[in-house]
Amino acid sequence: METSVVQPKEINHPVNLNKLGSRIFPGSTPKEDQNLLLAAAYVSDAQYNRNVPFETSPRAIRLYYFYNHWTMQVAIYFFICVDLSLALFEEPALFPLPFLATSLAEVLCLTAFFGRLVHFAKVTPQMVFWKDTKNICIMVTIVLTLIDLIIYGSLEAVNIHSVRWSRALRPVFLINFPESRQIRRTFRSIRNTLPDILYVFLLFMFSVLIFSLMALKLFGDRGLKTVEGLPYFTNILDIVFELYVLVTTANSPDVMMPAYNFNWWYCLYFITYTIINTYIFMSVFLAVVYNNYRKHLKNEIRKLAYLKRHKMIEAFNILKVKVGTEFVVTESQWRRLAKVVAPHISSPHLELLLRISDEGQKGHVDKVNFLRLADLLNIQVVTINIRRHPLEDWMPRAYRSSASLLVQRMVQHRIFVWVYDVIILINAIFIALDERNPFISYAEWLFLSLYIIEILLKLYTYEPRAYFGRRQFWNWFDTLIIIAALVATVANTTIQSARKYNSQQILDIVLILRILRLLRIIVSIQRFRVIVTTLINIGPTILTFGGLVLVVYYVFAIIGMEAFHGKVRFSDPNFTSPDALVCGNPALKDSAFARDRYCKNNFNDLASSFIVLMELTVVNQWHVLAGGFALVTHQAAKLYFIGFHIVVVILIVNIFIAFILEAFFVAYSLEKSEVETAIEKKIQELGVGIQEEEMQDGKLVDNVDAKDSGFSGDGGDNKRKDLKGLYFRIASKKYRTVDALLQQMFESEIAPEEEGPSLDEILNFSPGDLYPKNPNFENSA
Amino acid sequence: METSVVQPKEINHPVNLNKLGSRIFPGSTPKEDQNLLLAAAYVSDAQYNRNVPFETSPRAIRLYYFYNHWTMQVAIYFFICVDLSLALFEEPALFPLPFLATSLAEVLCLTAFFGRLVHFAKVTPQMVFWKDTKNICIMVTIVLTLIDLIIYGSLEAVNIHSVRWSRALRPVFLINFPESRQIRRTFRSIRNTLPDILYVFLLFMFSVLIFSLMALKLFGDRGLKTVEGLPYFTNILDIVFELYVLVTTANSPDVMMPAYNFNWWYCLYFITYTIINTYIFMSVFLAVVYNNYRKHLKNEIRKLAYLKRHKMIEAFNILKVKVGTEFVVTESQWRRLAKVVAPHISSPHLELLLRISDEGQKGHVDKVNFLRLADLLNIQVVTINIRRHPLEDWMPRAYRSSASLLVQRMVQHRIFVWVYDVIILINAIFIALDERNPFISYAEWLFLSLYIIEILLKLYTYEPRAYFGRRQFWNWFDTLIIIAALVATVANTTIQSARKYNSQQILDIVLILRILRLLRIIVSIQRFRVIVTTLINIGPTILTFGGLVLVVYYVFAIIGMEAFHGKVRFSDPNFTSPDALVCGNPALKDSAFARDRYCKNNFNDLASSFIVLMELTVVNQWHVLAGGFALVTHQAAKLYFIGFHIVVVILIVNIFIAFILEAFFVAYSLEKSEVETAIEKKIQELGVGIQEEEMQDGKLVDNVDAKDSGFSGDGGDNKRKDLKGLYFRIASKKYRTVDALLQQMFESEIAPEEEGPSLDEILNFSPGDLYPKNPNFENSA
Repeated sequence: METSVVQPKEINHPVNLNKLGSRIFPGSTPKEDQNLLLAAAYVSDAQYNRNVPFETSPRAIRLYYFYNHWTMQVAIYFFICVDLSLALFEEPALFPLPFLATSLAEVLCLTAFFGRLVHFAKVTPQMVFWKDTKNICIMVTIVLTLIDLIIYGSLEAVNIHSVRWSRALRPVFLINFPESRQIRRTFRSIRNTLPDILYVFLLFMFSVLIFSLMALKLFGDRGLKTVEGLPYFTNILDIVFELYVLVTTANSPDVMMPAYNFNWWYCLYFITYTIINTYIFMSVFLAVVYNNYRKHLKNEIRKLAYLKRHKMIEAFNILKVKVGTEFVVTESQWRRLAKVVAPHISSPHLELLLRISDEGQKGHVDKVNFLRLADLLNIQVVTINIRRHPLEDWMPRAYRSSASLLVQRMVQHRIFVWVYDVIILINAIFIALDERNPFISYAEWLFLSLYIIEILLKLYTYEPRAYFGRRQFWNWFDTLIIIAALVATVANTTIQSARKYNSQQILDIVLILRILRLLRIIVSIQRFRVIVTTLINIGPTILTFGGLVLVVYYVFAIIGMEAFHGKVRFSDPNFTSPDALVCGNPALKDSAFARDRYCKNNFNDLASSFIVLMELTVVNQWHVLAGGFALVTHQAAKLYFIGFHIVVVILIVNIFIAFILEAFFVAYSLEKSEVETAIEKKIQELGVGIQEEEMQDGKLVDNVDAKDSGFSGDGGDNKRKDLKGLYFRIASKKYRTVDALLQQMFESEIAPEEEGPSLDEILNFSPGDLYPKNPNFENSA
Repeated sequence: METSVVQPKEINHPVNLNKLGSRIFPGSTPKEDQNLLLAAAYVSDAQYNRNVPFETSPRAIRLYYFYNHWTMQVAIYFFICVDLSLALFEEPALFPLPFLATSLAEVLCLTAFFGRLVHFAKVTPQMVFWKDTKNICIMVTIVLTLIDLIIYGSLEAVNIHSVRWSRALRPVFLINFPESRQIRRTFRSIRNTLPDILYVFLLFMFSVLIFSLMALKLFGDRGLKTVEGLPYFTNILDIVFELYVLVTTANSPDVMMPAYNFNWWYCLYFITYTIINTYIFMSVFLAVVYNNYRKHLKNEIRKLAYLKRHKMIEAFNILKVKVGTEFVVTESQWRRLAKVVAPHISSPHLELLLRISDEGQKGHVDKVNFLRLADLLNIQVVTINIRRHPLEDWMPRAYRSSASLLVQRMVQHRIFVWVYDVIILINAIFIALDERNPFISYAEWLFLSLYIIEILLKLYTYEPRAYFGRRQFWNWFDTLIIIAALVATVANTTIQSARKYNSQQILDIVLILRILRLLRIIVSIQRFRVIVTTLINIGPTILTFGGLVLVVYYVFAIIGMEAFHGKVRFSDPNFTSPDALVCGNPALKDSAFARDRYCKNNFNDLASSFIVLMELTVVNQWHVLAGGFALVTHQAAKLYFIGFHIVVVILIVNIFIAFILEAFFVAYSLEKSEVETAIEKKIQELGVGIQEEEMQDGKLVDNVDAKDSGFSGDGGDNKRKDLKGLYFRIASKKYRTVDALLQQMFESEIAPEEEGPSLDEILNFSPGDLYPKNPNFENSA
């Protein structure tokens, strides 16, 4: 085959390879090295879905590599954590530190953030940098924080206590550093939802006001009394608050009882109100939030998929040479690229990737196959599973003896699982019984040893490294729980026999571990395992919500601490003194807040504030908390609680529900179908794929052997030796996140050759474009 | 054109036309009449989406016509209402009647139901009748009710009081009579969801149990006390109940406080529990219910669309004759058919339909156009709008005078609306003020007259029949509210001046009407109007949920009345006596139930029971109600309340939310697009369509005139005269239900010529078939 090599387009920047340290590969020119680095940056960005526009000068590229280095990422997260946790040490503090210490720490963090920003400015083009609101946000926040620090510090020096208002801005750093893409996306989604939700909210408030007026007219002059003997529905502002609380159902049916006791028919008023405002409006809020969430999710995913494609095409254009009539990347260039992008890749793994990319073994990779490289690198590879059990190597005769084989078959048998399920159930009953009975505490030792025997038997039967594979969640769970329980029980017994006293903490841990063991029964029931696996897979994204909730909680906690700290005090868990009964504040006398013993629900430090906010998120009794804090400050304090309800319950909880709905719908729609990308098909064709499912239930070893021989018949002998013991694990559908699944679906719909829209078009995608002009039966509902 | 007429296939039953009364059309043969009746039955079924398989013998067809007659439908609903409302008169009764009277009424209802069933058996083929579980259900229920009546009556005769258990079966009639398709569909949807939800529920209960065990171990031995001084978390059954209540959030944060007061760290247990069980599991329940709802909705709609097509093809096959190479229906046959299906159709309307069906005016209707007949008949027709204002006819000069025109232009101007919006707002402020001030009560008269003037001005400007058009919801609303307010205010003033005393009921009505008037401000704001219109359109389907809720409430109310009636008594609205304070039952002493004054929340009659069940649906404080009724009976009574929570909150409320979500999603996906069926396009082409939107805002008359002239240029002069003043109103997208919209979308996707699957296939559609083998990006999320 005639091979005419055409040089790829060069990068027009002076090259200074001394700064690069050393040549990447011997025998390559500086220009080649530099192109390779640029292409590798594109591929790496595509692999991790990074979307930072960087300059293509060699210096900028090297800075960009450094910018993306994991140490830098860890460092920035460390400083964000430090900055946020400062609230624990500032007044009102959980662990008080002098102002000087916290302000120094804050300045340090701000310096780090500024450094990161400067680094980013060096990497990205000037225009892009100054147009990005994220960067402006960070800079403004840094300046504001410094101003606040100076003002507060100076006033403190002359003993005037002022408000550290800039503390509420700290979450800005968590939101705006480019690594927090998921949190930012959720915030964007909220921001985009606001106009839609605003109108529904206004209508909802209008409805509440209309009903409040009605309530005032209907009940205001009746002279009715609440259970507490207070006047019932006489003040329009109180009525609006009570009816808002009724929407959250927190004061149902109490708010209705006086009117209902007075006249049977008045309950119709409340029933109508509940149906309209609680059921219909709250569902409409969910519908609006969900609809926007869905629209924006799809838009973002389309954007990501096209950007990825775009980056891979850039990389290809840098490295391409002309072979015959088509542009390709030579095998040697491809190898070098892969080595730069994934330096720790093993050489058999690299061979396998090349084999998949270069189907015809022509010595070069064509464009379509090259574009897949980022996805190929994302596929996990299993190498360990082919190995035989170590015992088989050490003492083959004993391990293969009939007694040993019998044990192995026994362990692999279904009845073995059932027996242990029964043991777990008996264990559950024993746990429920009184543990002070010595017989039962001895039984605990029996159960513990039974579980240890089980793990040992399994390790004897299955190859240990396969048993503790990366995704073998339940095996890890089992073993860790048992080992921890063993250690804790032994520790507890030692302490007990030494000092005749139970360490409370250790005992608690032992108890919890003992009960968590029961979770294993879920593994035995297939249907349960599926649900739990889906839930575990949603886990990482739920953590995103953790970040979002953290941001909102933090802002509200800082405001709450400034407004309410010290107003309510918890002094005595037994509530013996009259002062403890009113939470140290006489204004709370006879209030529902004091009567329900809510003194510990206060804003006196960050941790307590977070717990109060958690209780407000759960909604129930929030009006009691709001009422209590309004009593010790001012009725306007209720606005803080209403604001929190609107932001957290109406917006964030609804987005959370929307997310769970979406995750389950994707899981459901995939249940009956096969979505495979081209790469997965290729891997399956080559016979080197392992489905995640096969890894479980001990079917692993057999399957791998079978596939292994199949593969050897198909490839060359040399290759076979290289690839022996190496398999691609295709992550099971069940193990993918909604994002990844949707992205994959979308990618499988773009033709492999399609270049996609231009970069500008991609960046300006709006969710509106996504909607088909003629919605059809399939996609409308 | 050569016209060869081929007789359609005949129906092989002896004809006895004497029974039919008279010939349908002069000059037709008995066989033709009979075929026409059969075809008309098919078309009528297609028009109303009825799916009763009926026999094709002439006698069966006539019986079928009678079966579908509105008097029969009204009668059956009347008897169902009577049967259900019997619970109001039976012990424990709201209005007691002797057992003899209620049992006679019940027997009468049962006879009516049996008669309806016999009628149905005569209409439908034997095989179909006995295979249908609906019919079996009704028969079994009738027999069981009779047995119960006899047993109860005999025991009552010898003064032994037994349980009227069959009363809980009464909703069976509401569900199973074929007219209640919507309720049945929702029940089917619930039934189909059960297997999926069962596994999630088991997992959820497992999680609750695991956490209960943990709570027992962690808190059981601490000697903690609740606010009421009761032992905290010592009994495993109590713990399970408390934790189940925590899932519903009803006892948050109270259930946490003792542990939290004891040790800061224990709140982590409750936070974990809430996140897992309240947030995640409850969202998963919603996801499962919603997913199933969606699947089944689509399946049903596909079924309905194909069945409609099937029926129209049957009708066509009966009436078809061969003209040239294709089968058609002659114009005269088509006219006769339309007259039988819609006897009250006006002849210009009929002409217009024919014109649309017979495009080329060839004297016959081809198959594709014939299949549209059912949809054509469903389109509403407006005839009134073309007429001029009656005043213009009576006194043209005065009405067209410049002063009159100025008034008309003023009323049509936007500022007129704004002025009245301001008036309404001022009115709202006056309402909020104290009405005992005489100045304010005079102002009320001023406002009332201003509103009356507004309506009179509008009636002067717009044509009255157009102003009070069928769909002019807000005009009707306005006028009715004002007239009612006028009547009530006058009545109240008369009574007041005559007897110096306000009638409480009338005053209440006046107050409510006065406030409802404020709702008008919604009409002025476009975005509000859209949301409200969507909500009003969902209305009819929400009533379906009313039916569903009625069924479930009824069953639970009957059971609740049998179990709890008389246990709790409400005697004194002021709770002055100690007996009234414990609701007449010493077991309630010191209970939360008595402390919260919940005595009126009891099961002593049907109305009270329904209100209690409504409170349980709202969830908050349900554990107090459950605890109260458990105290006066047995702890096992809590199972009744848990069961109600599972059925109503986890299933029905989630289905309700799913329904609202779906309705809004369809509305959203239509917002940006145009879904038009072929018929709508045709009507628009002919220039005889009016969009609903044009009817509002007084643009009506102008538009109609413009279109009118357009139409006359296009059609013949004779036709024009016939059609003058007659327009098809194309129901706006906004005014359609989700069902109708989805069905229309699906129908627009079936090719006009497609025959669809066979009847058996249609009836055996399963939701699984609907799912695409390869879900794509568009339909997955």
